Formats: sequence, C-alpha cells, structure tokens
Amino acid sequence: MSEMEEKKGVESPQFETRMDAPTADVENQTPSSGFGVAAITRRWKREDLLKRGSLALRGLAMVFSLLAFIVMASNRHGDWKDFDKYEEFRYVLAIAILSTLYTLGQVLRHVHELSTGRQMMQKRTSALIDFFGDQIISYLLISSASSAVPMTNRMREGADNLFTDSLAASISMQFLAFLALAFSALISGYKLSSQSYI
Amino acid sequence: MSEMEEKKGVESPQFETRMDAPTADVENQTPSSGFGVAAITRRWKREDLLKRGSLALRGLAMVFSLLAFIVMASNRHGDWKDFDKYEEFRYVLAIAILSTLYTLGQVLRHVHELSTGRQMMQKRTSALIDFFGDQIISYLLISSASSAVPMTNRMREGADNLFTDSLAASISMQFLAFLALAFSALISGYKLSSQSYI
Repeated sequence: MSEMEEKKGVESPQFETRMDAPTADVENQTPSSGFGVAAITRRWKREDLLKRGSLALRGLAMVFSLLAFIVMASNRHGDWKDFDKYEEFRYVLAIAILSTLYTLGQVLRHVHELSTGRQMMQKRTSALIDFFGDQIISYLLISSASSAVPMTNRMREGADNLFTDSLAASISMQFLAFLALAFSALISGYKLSSQSYI
Repeated sequence: MSEMEEKKGVESPQFETRMDAPTADVENQTPSSGFGVAAITRRWKREDLLKRGSLALRGLAMVFSLLAFIVMASNRHGDWKDFDKYEEFRYVLAIAILSTLYTLGQVLRHVHELSTGRQMMQKRTSALIDFFGDQIISYLLISSASSAVPMTNRMREGADNLFTDSLAASISMQFLAFLALAFSALISGYKLSSQSYI
C-alpha cells in the first residue's frame, strides 16, 4: 500500500479519481471478492435453491397423487358403492396414475442428475419438458378433481358412509397434488425464461 | 481501403488474423447497422408482437366467456330444466361472469396503454397482475368447465333437448375461453421472467 501511495503523487489525476470511486472502497473492504464474483455466487445459490425446491414440490405431488390413486382404486364396496360405475371417479383414477408416473419419472431423473452431476439431455429440452409437463399435468389434476366434486356432494346429502368419505379423501389428495405441481410449474417456467433462448 | 492494405504489409500478424475473422466480413456487408442495433430492433419487434398477441388472446377469452355466460344464464325451461337447480351449472355461470369482467378490464387497460403510450402502473406490478390473473382465471375456467361435464353427460343419456344442448354449448365456450387464457398466461409468464427482476 505504501508503494501505491507514493505513486499517487506522480500519477495523473485520472488515477486519483479511480481510487475515490465507490467501487474502489468496496474492493478495499473485501479484497478477495469483487462485484462480479458475488453476483455469480448469488446466481448459483438461487439456481441451486430453485432446483431443490422444484424437486421437493414434485416429490410432494408424487406422494399426494399416489395416495389419491390408492384410496380411489381400493374404493369398492359393492352395489352402487363402486367407484368404477361413475365416469368422474374413473377420470380421477386415470389422472392420478398418470400424475404418479410423471412425477416419479421427473424425481428419478433430477435425483440422478443432482447425484452424478451429468445432464441426461440438452439443457433446453430438459427445461421445456419440465415446464410443459408440469403445466399440463396440473391442468389435468384440477380438471379431474373438480369433475368429481358435484357427484360426491350429491351422494353425501343422502348418505355419509365409507364410500363417500374415501371419495372425499381421494379428491382432496388430488387437489393437494395439483397445488404442488402448479407451484413447480411456476418455478420451471421461470427457469425456462431466465435462460434467454428465444 | 488502399491505405489499410498498405498498412497490412508492415503490421503484426495479429492484425491480419482480425481482418480474416467472420465478424469483420459481416461489418463490411452492412456498414450502417452493427450487431447491437439489429438485436435491439429484433427485441422491440418481438415485444410488440407479444403485446398484440396477448391482447388478441384476452379479447378472444372475453368473447368466449361472455357467450358462456349468456347461454348459461338464459338456460331456464322450467321443472328440472333450470340451470340454477344444479350447483355445477351455477359454478360455471359464476366463473363465466368473473372471467368476462377480468378480461374486459385487462383489454380496456391494454388498449388504453397502447393508444396513449402511457403506463397506468409500474411495469413490474403490471406484469405480475397480468401473469397471476391469467393463470388463476384459467385454472378456475378449466375447473368449472370440467365440473359441469359429468352431469350433462348423464342428462344427455336420458333426453336430448334444448336444455342439455345449451349446457353443452356453454361448457364448450368455457373451455375455449380457458384455452385462450392459458396461452395468454404463457405469454405473460414469459414477459414477467424475461425482465430479470428477481
């Protein structure tokens, strides 16, 4: 530092201005990391957080849609109390299976990528599949859950038994899976756009 | 150019390499506009296209949800053929009204901004309202449309009359409004993320 102060006297005024600028102050406070490095580290941390967040949300969606599938599929009590006599409950079951398979595949793929550090496909293809998959499955989940609600309500007006309670439980799980996947679609939409492909 | 060719003989080999690079060729072909200006113009054109595209999609969604509202509200033929005796059809009506009001407000706001060139609110607030509004209303539209489908199917198995036909028409309009608004949500999500706020 003593050498630089000695130089200050003989150098041009341009050098003095640079030393007085606010960037120079910051550099003196933290000599090892400048502005650029801090911004990049922050960006890395944010991307890591987003990656783990969307993985957790997809895991939640998988659990909820698996529960919806199991509760609905085991809901057969004979006579009119069979879920497969009503098209809306068959729809709920079909979408629950689809959503379980989709989220399972996504979770396995992302866990594999996080643990090995290798990409299974191009980054752009991966982001596109993530976003459109999440968005389409979440539309299907809300659609199936709300299609099953009116019939369940009508049955519960007449009788409140094991069949209608299981229906209500399955629909609720489907709705929770929708919530998790809708948030995951938000995150993957942000990831898709923030990489300036278009 | 003759001066530069004369210099070429005496200059260092580094200068020759720069002249042979592809960027130099492009600059010779279009001397007035460099890379930067073309990129900015392209970005402006794309933003303008997106703005008009999302305005058109919201206009379409407004027309479709207005039609769904009118067809459903006028669908009263006495006895069991009243739409307001069924909770799913009342839900369709409520969401059709909500969606009509929302899209009308958005279209008016964006037409006003396009014609006067002034922003009514901060750019970031506007983008947030656009995206979350579109996304939430499109979830509500798909939810209401699919909740009304099973009951309509069951009625059409028994009798095919003016009441059930109007129900089907109203549900279809609701579904088309959902499609338009879902695409509009895609566009406004892209706009929200491409401005690097976070």
